[in-house]
Amino acid sequence: MERALAEAAAAGDAGEVSVGAVVIKDGQLIATGQNRNLRDHDPSAHAEIVALRAAGAALANHRLEGCEMCVIIEPCAMCAGALVHGRIKRLIYGARDPKAGAVDSMMQVVNHPRLNHRMQVTGGVLEDRCAAILREFFQTRRKIKE
Amino acid sequence: MERALAEAAAAGDAGEVSVGAVVIKDGQLIATGQNRNLRDHDPSAHAEIVALRAAGAALANHRLEGCEMCVIIEPCAMCAGALVHGRIKRLIYGARDPKAGAVDSMMQVVNHPRLNHRMQVTGGVLEDRCAAILREFFQTRRKIKE
Repeated sequence: MERALAEAAAAGDAGEVSVGAVVIKDGQLIATGQNRNLRDHDPSAHAEIVALRAAGAALANHRLEGCEMCVIIEPCAMCAGALVHGRIKRLIYGARDPKAGAVDSMMQVVNHPRLNHRMQVTGGVLEDRCAAILREFFQTRRKIKE
Repeated sequence: MERALAEAAAAGDAGEVSVGAVVIKDGQLIATGQNRNLRDHDPSAHAEIVALRAAGAALANHRLEGCEMCVIIEPCAMCAGALVHGRIKRLIYGARDPKAGAVDSMMQVVNHPRLNHRMQVTGGVLEDRCAAILREFFQTRRKIKE
């Protein structure tokens, strides 16, 4: 999660929403991602998607068997759906997202009874620091707009 | 939808699940997409995501204001979430997907009351032909496996 927080800070420094994610396999870091929506002109470029794409490239496989994702905020519906498609074994996330979280909060895409893949989920890891980096980002952005 | 069907056929010929999508703005085709999961080793590379990424690149903007998406099957949770992030104005789809459709069938990510974007939705366009191309693809794949 420390590396995901570092990726989040880098995204924020680049003017993106400060979210970072990593993919780990067998205890080894195999991919990182940070939000790139603005830089890449890409509506799908959330940190999780960027990291999943990098992990697929690293493994030369679209099925990321045995992989874990660690991300600083609860994934949205898009990212949660991608985690299912990637057959992620375990999801570790930091802050809950009551507005758009699609794991535990607003809806349940991960481990939905009608979808064909299950993963372990651990939420709330370094929750205070993960929430703080996002809160600071949005506070700074509001100040710039004022 | 004819062009989306052609993209779907091309995906099937390449050994991918035969799904195709297009993005239209002001009556003009600005992007196309076909499933590329296997070719790109990318769990996120559904036809809709590929087309949204191409549209963002074409417009140099991650917000696809005023754009319509046309896709041969009802989008899954990942793709439906990406349509919301892209601020797509209208979604036109062919066949319903009772197993994983996240617009009208299995869950409702598009136009979810808690999400901050609304779009027009028209389902069932050329439904028989869209369903047929997918059915044929899966029948062929089953025969190869037998």
